Parts: sequence; C-alpha cells; structure tokens
Amino acid sequence: MKVGIVGGGQLARMLVLAGYPLGLEFLVLDPAPDACAGQVCELIRADYDDESALRRLAQDTDVVTFEFENVPDKSIHILSEQHLVFPPPAALGVAQDRLKEKNLFRELDIPIPAVRAIDNRDDLDKAATELGLPLVIKTRRLGYDGKGQATVQIECDFDSVWRDLPSVPLIAEQFVPFQRELSIVAVRNRNGETAFYPIPENTHRNSMLHLSVCKPGDPQQAQAEDYVKRLLDALEYTGVLTLELFEVDGRLLANEIAPRVHNSGHWSIEGAKTSQFENHLRAVLGLPLGSTAAFGYSAMVNLIGILPKAGDILSKPNIHFHAYGKKPRPGRKLGHATVVTASSVALEKEISGLIELTGVVAEAV
Amino acid sequence: MKVGIVGGGQLARMLVLAGYPLGLEFLVLDPAPDACAGQVCELIRADYDDESALRRLAQDTDVVTFEFENVPDKSIHILSEQHLVFPPPAALGVAQDRLKEKNLFRELDIPIPAVRAIDNRDDLDKAATELGLPLVIKTRRLGYDGKGQATVQIECDFDSVWRDLPSVPLIAEQFVPFQRELSIVAVRNRNGETAFYPIPENTHRNSMLHLSVCKPGDPQQAQAEDYVKRLLDALEYTGVLTLELFEVDGRLLANEIAPRVHNSGHWSIEGAKTSQFENHLRAVLGLPLGSTAAFGYSAMVNLIGILPKAGDILSKPNIHFHAYGKKPRPGRKLGHATVVTASSVALEKEISGLIELTGVVAEAV
Repeated sequence: MKVGIVGGGQLARMLVLAGYPLGLEFLVLDPAPDACAGQVCELIRADYDDESALRRLAQDTDVVTFEFENVPDKSIHILSEQHLVFPPPAALGVAQDRLKEKNLFRELDIPIPAVRAIDNRDDLDKAATELGLPLVIKTRRLGYDGKGQATVQIECDFDSVWRDLPSVPLIAEQFVPFQRELSIVAVRNRNGETAFYPIPENTHRNSMLHLSVCKPGDPQQAQAEDYVKRLLDALEYTGVLTLELFEVDGRLLANEIAPRVHNSGHWSIEGAKTSQFENHLRAVLGLPLGSTAAFGYSAMVNLIGILPKAGDILSKPNIHFHAYGKKPRPGRKLGHATVVTASSVALEKEISGLIELTGVVAEAV
Repeated sequence: MKVGIVGGGQLARMLVLAGYPLGLEFLVLDPAPDACAGQVCELIRADYDDESALRRLAQDTDVVTFEFENVPDKSIHILSEQHLVFPPPAALGVAQDRLKEKNLFRELDIPIPAVRAIDNRDDLDKAATELGLPLVIKTRRLGYDGKGQATVQIECDFDSVWRDLPSVPLIAEQFVPFQRELSIVAVRNRNGETAFYPIPENTHRNSMLHLSVCKPGDPQQAQAEDYVKRLLDALEYTGVLTLELFEVDGRLLANEIAPRVHNSGHWSIEGAKTSQFENHLRAVLGLPLGSTAAFGYSAMVNLIGILPKAGDILSKPNIHFHAYGKKPRPGRKLGHATVVTASSVALEKEISGLIELTGVVAEAV
C-alpha cells in the first residue's frame, strides 16, 4: 500500500521511516525542493494548492494524510473529493481556527482558559477588562511554534499593541499561571479503536518545544485521556491527535489540539512499543493499533539551530540520535535526541546529558 | 554523508533504514529493477561488473560497502582503487572462497570440521576414506543459503555423485553431528574498536535460516567472541562480521564467515541498544560504535515464500513486523518478525506465536 503525505518536513520523514518496515510506500507533497522527507521517499515539488499535484498525490496513493494542519481548505476539498483522507477534513478545519477549537472544547465540557474573539480595537479593550492582564493574543489561523502570538503583560498603550498586531482575526486568552505543560498523544483507527500514550511534561524555550519528559503513571493521565477521547469521538477522528494541556493547581486546561503526530511524542520511537508514527499509519490504513505502552522512562530534547557532531553524540551510549537531514539555520528544528531508562531516578541523571547537547547548540547559534 | 552499497536486497534496505535517522544518505547498486532497497533510496540499476556504474557509485558517495560477499574481484578492485571500501577487499576474498576461509581458520587456531580440497575424482575417494561418511560437498565459491552444497550420506556409487557435482573447485567437509548452530555478529570500526552481540542459536529449514533465538548469557559467548576477535584482527576488518559456528559436545567449530550484516542478527533491530545495521554504518564511517547490549530475550523468525496479512500480524501486540517490499515467490525471504521479552520463560511462550506465522506461510507455499 502507498501513503500520500501533504508536507515533507521531519514529521513526514519519520512517518515514512516508520512505514517502510511495514512494507509501505510513500509519496510526499511539499513546495520546498529540499524538503527533508524527499531524501527518504519520492517527493512531488509543488505548492499546497497546486490542483494537478494534489490530484496526482491522490491518484497515486491508497490514502492521503497530513504532517501539518494548515492545509488550504480548497486543497483538502480536492483531495477528499476523490480519495480517502485522514484525519477527517472537519478535524483539520477545527485545528486551523483557534476560535472553532475553543468552541469545540466548550461544547465537550473540556475546561479552557477564558478566551474572547478579537475582531476590532474595542474587542481588545473589552477582553483586557474582562480577562485581566497578562493577556495572550493569538492569530485565529496559521499559528504554530509560538508564531502569530503576542503577550500583553502590563497596562500599556493599547493603541501601539493594536498597531503591531496582524490585521487578521485574533483571539485573546487569559494568561494561565500553569505549573506544568502536558500533552497527550492519542490515536483512533478507522474502526474506532483508540489508544493513548503516557503523557509527557513539556518545557518550551523561545516558544518552541525544548524538552519532553515522559514518566508513565502521571497522576493526570486518566483526566487527559478522558478529554482527548471526547475530541476523538466528537470529530470521528482517524489518526494521531495531540492535545496540549496546562496543569493549574491540579486541574487540566486544554490549550490546543494538533491533528497529527506531535513533537512531544517523538520519545515513542524508542520509548514505546509502537511509535506514534507507526500508529498513525496503522490508524489511517485501517490496521489494528499497536501497543502504546512505554518501555520505561523517556526524555526527548530538540536539537535546534545546529546539530552536534555525529561522533560526539554517538559516543554517548544511552542517547538515540535523530537527524532530519535539514540545513542548519537559527531556530530550525534539525533533529532530536532521546534517552530511555528503567527508572525515574536514572532518567533524571540522563536528562542533564541531553540538555548538554542543546547547550552546545545554543552557544554556537 | 552518503553511503554506497553494492547489492540492493533486504540487507541493504535495512542498512538504509538504520542510517536515515543518523542523517545519512544512500546510493545502492543492483542489477534487478525491483531490488527492494530501491524502494527506500536511490538505485543504480546496473550489473555488478558495470565499470561506469561502479565508478559513479564511488564518486557520488563517501564510502562504499556491500550487502553480500560474492562481488566480482574486478568490481572490488575498481571501487577500492579510488575510494574508501569496507569491509576490506581481502576479507571479501577470504569469504568468497571456502578453502581460503578454512585455511584462515586453521592459521588462527580456530577449530573447524576436517576438510579436504576436491579438484578431481581421486580427491573425492580420498576424502571419503580419510574423513568418513556422511560427507558434505560444497562449491569453493559463490555458495549461500545452502546453494552449491550436497551431502553424501552413505556408501554409494561415487561415480554418480561425481557426475552430479558442478565442475568447479569443491571442498569436502566432515559432517558434524552438532547439538546447536550458533553465530556471533561482531563489529570493528575504522579505529579498531570492537563490539560483540550476544550469540543467537539458529535453526535452519531447507538450508535457510528459519529461527534465531538470542538469550544473553550463553555459556559459549566468551569462546565465540575470542574466535571472531582473531578474525577481525587478522583481517584488519572494518564493519560487521558474522561467524557461524557448530556446537559439538560443548566445543565450538567454525563453519563459515559472512563479511556483512547477517540474518541471525536481525533481532538486534528491536532487541539491542544499537542494531547490527546501525553499527555496520558507524563502523564503516569511522564513528564510535553503539552499545551491543540486549534489552532482553529475543527471537526472530524469517517469513519465507509468502507474507501473512498485515492486519493479522499487526494484531499480535508483542510481534515486530518487517516486510521487505519483495514480490512473493517460493523460497524467497520476504520479511521477518521479532519478539523481545524480559525473561527466557516469556520468550519460550512467544516463540510458538512466531512459529505460527511461518506455519501459515509454509502451508500456503
């Protein structure tokens, strides 16, 4: 069977590498001539709204999936018109629009930070009054890795804030003084079978994920599963779905969903019986899901901007190295590294070694 | 860095899949248009003695390696003339010729079954007299998976035996009533660093490997390491080298070497910290070796002739499935399946499930 993927970055690359051992073939669509998935499978170089490229992607494959959610509506329409497309277009539509997403959370009784739509200058003032400061302003559409976000920390000249904001629909969200950022990677296949990975705790740096630490048995596991299960069922979802969460005083608040494999699930390549990538493929192909059980305690660190030398990183016996084949550029995710240990104590010891890897990178940028 | 591989079958395919996460690129040479490694990387379709194809392989890559030993001398010469080639050509030369191989074992004081060169009809009679029956006759060159082998079980018409033998240099080997067939997969990098995998016990069916069971702590581990270390050092070897062994009354006798990754090491993909494929790449690229430690107890079964349905095999939660993307054909290795368990007892339980997979296959052939 052949799988089409819209988007040819590292998520597509890791989907492809997870699928080859199952005997699958792949075709990827990406406008960038050096899209890193193109190093490991056939790449159609075309814009995401190129109608003939989309039709070729659909015709030459058995199922089409996505490595990112911000695919133009029209493209999803072209693909789904003639073809099996997972996750379902409606789920992509929700994930593309923060206001729709927040409304779905509310409908499903999943707690979220207070939020307001911002369509004009008055809405901004009103939100500040009603929600208080700090206030997080986000574009309703096309945000990722903290792009399209701003935080208003203190009372200030709201005219200048307004001037600097992009002139697109926005939302304003109450700033949540969270204790932890968590995420749950869940998967649902075409038969409605579901499975949930142990939840990691995530640390961001410059609005990008820096570190995910997954210790099975987190006290929030059951609550996180309950929330994401509501989303999977409501969206009649197929594939991997990730729900990002804040923990505030022992309660979980939903932040956002990603209708795809997720950076906070990369630890599963070595740390779980079946990786998130393999399970996404199983789900969209209508195959039985694999076990999401963890082998132990895992941590994953992103390698951003530059990569350590292969010899340096491979000399560390417990670290699994993943390079994405991308050209170094400041702020670019170039790879990640994972450790898996038998105990929580051992994990804490290994994490400093992991952090050191990115320390080297940070200095060199 | 880019690695060239001569041969584009499943061993090359698994080398490629092990190398992508390290950020490596690959170019494979194989005459078969449907060589299965060609599904996962760029393939040069050309004969193994095609001079311009060999030169292109060398020029476009940083290092060239092999997935099989029976590469024409002239081809190895062309490649090594202008390029880094590992394993060293001398090692390939030894592995290509059973008499050279036996002589090397003798030089290194590695015990082997009694053996005689057979160049004419008289040699055959002499061997039968000196070594007794049964006698195993093998071609000196180009044998694999039991091809080019015959066994003379009982006193019979030696004229007819002689007539049926191929008219090429042969050897006759004393038949060894072994208790176990074992193998050791070893690796040595460009700096002379060595590492050894735990030895599996191998079971053959129709002269092809059927099952490998690897329980770390085998009493023959140290002896096997000692023997293969002598070979690695004598050959100034770089890459993975496999030594096949017979166990007879508690003693080890060397059978043959394979200067490459080996079917009896496939369990290492899930069962060891670093797979034999990744370690072969590390070795030939001059990188530090990864740990060969096993995660637990592993068993691997070959899927020969036809594959079980993906849905059937993926519904078994403890089995890791590898399909090579090859067209089904009786006697063809199409994939393998592996289980890894925490205890020897648990492994024995899982092995029957594994065998069942090939049982289905055997019936269908």
